[in-house]
Amino acid sequence: MTDQLVIGGHPFNSRFILGSGKFSLEIVKAVIENGGAEIVTLALRRANLGGEENILDYIPSNVTLLPNTSGARTAEEAVKIARLAREINCGNFVKVEVIRDSKYLFPDNYETIKATEILAKDGFVVLPYMYPDLNVARDLVSAGAAAVMPLAAPIGSNKGLSTRDFIEILVNEIAVPIIVDAGIGRPSQACEAMEMGVDAVMCNTAVATAKNIPLMARAFGQAIESGRNAYLAGLGRVLTEAEASSPLTGFLED
Amino acid sequence: MTDQLVIGGHPFNSRFILGSGKFSLEIVKAVIENGGAEIVTLALRRANLGGEENILDYIPSNVTLLPNTSGARTAEEAVKIARLAREINCGNFVKVEVIRDSKYLFPDNYETIKATEILAKDGFVVLPYMYPDLNVARDLVSAGAAAVMPLAAPIGSNKGLSTRDFIEILVNEIAVPIIVDAGIGRPSQACEAMEMGVDAVMCNTAVATAKNIPLMARAFGQAIESGRNAYLAGLGRVLTEAEASSPLTGFLED
Amino acid sequence: MTDQLVIGGHPFNSRFILGSGKFSLEIVKAVIENGGAEIVTLALRRANLGGEENILDYIPSNVTLLPNTSGARTAEEAVKIARLAREINCGNFVKVEVIRDSKYLFPDNYETIKATEILAKDGFVVLPYMYPDLNVARDLVSAGAAAVMPLAAPIGSNKGLSTRDFIEILVNEIAVPIIVDAGIGRPSQACEAMEMGVDAVMCNTAVATAKNIPLMARAFGQAIESGRNAYLAGLGRVLTEAEASSPLTGFLED
Amino acid sequence: MTDQLVIGGHPFNSRFILGSGKFSLEIVKAVIENGGAEIVTLALRRANLGGEENILDYIPSNVTLLPNTSGARTAEEAVKIARLAREINCGNFVKVEVIRDSKYLFPDNYETIKATEILAKDGFVVLPYMYPDLNVARDLVSAGAAAVMPLAAPIGSNKGLSTRDFIEILVNEIAVPIIVDAGIGRPSQACEAMEMGVDAVMCNTAVATAKNIPLMARAFGQAIESGRNAYLAGLGRVLTEAEASSPLTGFLED
Repeated sequence: MTDQLVIGGHPFNSRFILGSGKFSLEIVKAVIENGGAEIVTLALRRANLGGEENILDYIPSNVTLLPNTSGARTAEEAVKIARLAREINCGNFVKVEVIRDSKYLFPDNYETIKATEILAKDGFVVLPYMYPDLNVARDLVSAGAAAVMPLAAPIGSNKGLSTRDFIEILVNEIAVPIIVDAGIGRPSQACEAMEMGVDAVMCNTAVATAKNIPLMARAFGQAIESGRNAYLAGLGRVLTEAEASSPLTGFLED
Repeated sequence: MTDQLVIGGHPFNSRFILGSGKFSLEIVKAVIENGGAEIVTLALRRANLGGEENILDYIPSNVTLLPNTSGARTAEEAVKIARLAREINCGNFVKVEVIRDSKYLFPDNYETIKATEILAKDGFVVLPYMYPDLNVARDLVSAGAAAVMPLAAPIGSNKGLSTRDFIEILVNEIAVPIIVDAGIGRPSQACEAMEMGVDAVMCNTAVATAKNIPLMARAFGQAIESGRNAYLAGLGRVLTEAEASSPLTGFLED
Repeated sequence: MTDQLVIGGHPFNSRFILGSGKFSLEIVKAVIENGGAEIVTLALRRANLGGEENILDYIPSNVTLLPNTSGARTAEEAVKIARLAREINCGNFVKVEVIRDSKYLFPDNYETIKATEILAKDGFVVLPYMYPDLNVARDLVSAGAAAVMPLAAPIGSNKGLSTRDFIEILVNEIAVPIIVDAGIGRPSQACEAMEMGVDAVMCNTAVATAKNIPLMARAFGQAIESGRNAYLAGLGRVLTEAEASSPLTGFLED
Repeated sequence: MTDQLVIGGHPFNSRFILGSGKFSLEIVKAVIENGGAEIVTLALRRANLGGEENILDYIPSNVTLLPNTSGARTAEEAVKIARLAREINCGNFVKVEVIRDSKYLFPDNYETIKATEILAKDGFVVLPYMYPDLNVARDLVSAGAAAVMPLAAPIGSNKGLSTRDFIEILVNEIAVPIIVDAGIGRPSQACEAMEMGVDAVMCNTAVATAKNIPLMARAFGQAIESGRNAYLAGLGRVLTEAEASSPLTGFLED
């Protein structure tokens, strides 16, 4: 049995999506390999052509690029960035980010729906970053999203699964893959999300703010795989009282 | 660098301690191997000599046995069981369990201190199961405990880290290894305990109540390793607001 | 000093908004009085004119009615219901509810913005029921909302403050009153919301599903007042370690 | 119907026990009256005879004094302090505190059992401060405790109900009143404890560290009464999905 994540018809063996926005270029490759990531997001500015160093030179060629539209404040700007990314050979996957709030960096769900619709029609595999609202997730699927990327907590906060109950609802109600993105701060939180049935987890800050970055990438890779296995294995029941683990409940002479 | 767990002078590479009390003998070996466990607890009744099937025949020989004193209601009974276990070649590790409450199966901390003292003097490597009380943990260390095994929640409940704040205090204050035992229901909870700096996690019911038992053992093994790596890597800070992950915080033309 | 809640220019002394949708008419008056509520929501169908019993006959005349647009699936339907309510003398307060999801009854934030804009221009004091999304809250304020009513959890679930972190953000960022509505199941949860600085709490199901309904209304009234007082009094700091409460930290002879 | 708290045969109408250890004498009376407290703890050093100011002069005469044995490190010292308190007319109620850990100020459960036994035989109404361990609670009842006072979190920490699951077990299993003591930081936490069926809550630091101390005392008094009423009224069920609050589930024309 192979358990693969399929996004827009493309199969992946890893369910850990790595953000590359906060690492120095020197360690990008080691971080990707430690985490076992097969999809890596990147902001267009780091993939620019020309004289400067280009992050694309540091990412192994078997990795699928997921350029984001970071910096876009409207659907129109997001569409423009996505097309630019395709032109410079970042492929046809795109993470739509439309943000108009600079303090919490919350996605603008409705501009995101608009951008998703335009880009899906234009042949992109669209993964929209969203505020976890069931109605919006349904609209994104109707607009052609290949997956949805609901936030766990504000970007970069490491706060964890603040939206737990609402992501659980998306898992139950939405047919495309659910990728938890933003706010996950610890491997245990990524593991918990996977146990709930989420399809993948994306991390950037939690790895980048660790003291030992490659080792933290490994920890996230293991936690995500663990949570997936636990989901597939089927979690046991929870009791309020105790239940003896050992068959020896009375003393020997009993 | 090797990161080993050392208990009573014995080094271990795995930090997953597996309880064997609830599996059928046929799958014990597969469960141990999937989880990568190097220490396995067992109740004396399953290791009896004579005509019946003996769990010892099913446990790989490189695994350290940790017989428990399940069934003991007093220090005296625990001591008796421990000695019996040593006689039938279960080795000199012992998990002291003294329980007088049949509904929640909470350890009797004071009988446990007494049994620990007697058995430590008698050459055992003593790992007492305890209610996580800092004063008692100190007394157990004085009595010769090689590690302490505070409960997360009632045995077999799968409730998770109900004693989180108090286990964190033990991690900060107690010099011998801290092994969280009882109540852990999900790999994410085992991972969280390890992230806090706990030295090892013991599970039995959470694995045994899964639909696919060997796969859940694998999930726990991965989660515990992940949590250890996260602890070693150093968790990042937590913020209330957002912090951009991507360097592209303004739009392209900005 | 008087601490009043002001909505659309109208001052209120109580911060407990009571939903009337699930009580029998016989006890409505006792429930309102026990809880000290000065605003009561009602669905139009219970306020119909004609032969049947009319809830309006049971509500004390000093109470402000807050008719909701329950049943509306679009902005247009919500506007129609609001106008009908005004015609039958329910006043000019209206709680806008636009719901297209029948399982979780989540509000459709964008139809809600549209209805709010139309009704605010039409002279209503508009209180929109919303999914707690900061961008949407800002749009509702721009559209003329007199207050916003973010949900704590699905309507009628009694699950509590599942949206805690996001409501806290609304408290910090939004200038109109924040009224937590839907999902609050216990007085302690209403109290916690008020401690966070929320301006008022609305309850219906938590009161209606209690065994003693008027007594539970009293409990909610007290909890909401308590939480408000705690917010005004200023909560103390939280420590990880202990700090002696008693001045006698050494023994008498010390 | 009167709902009274009865401790050692003495009935009380209030379930808020106030610690006096951190207030200036000038406001003690106002704090007691705002909170509606009928029992006030005090450390012996503040009740000393002689030239200095005496807290006893500031406590209304209808209030029951609960001197604590703060400073005692052994049962013997606790007994000595208790007898001294009785001699200087603090009455025969005593809160036994035996603490040997100076960082977390955790009670020494076993010295506490010993002191309880001696003092109960000596005619005191004994309320022992304890680490919430079911076995120990049973021993305290056997030793003659009139109530038990399990901690919520370290003294003075304002951390809240860290021991929630274990206090719930005490509520179910122990026949004498359960008084949550230490660590409660907010009225909502006191309210939650009371909703669980706890008989009373004691606070000191949470009130003393507020900006407006008498107002916070009022907030605690209200929250504790609210939680008691909610417990008596019977909390409603919790659902995962929604359930309509309004009878108008279809639109008007439906």
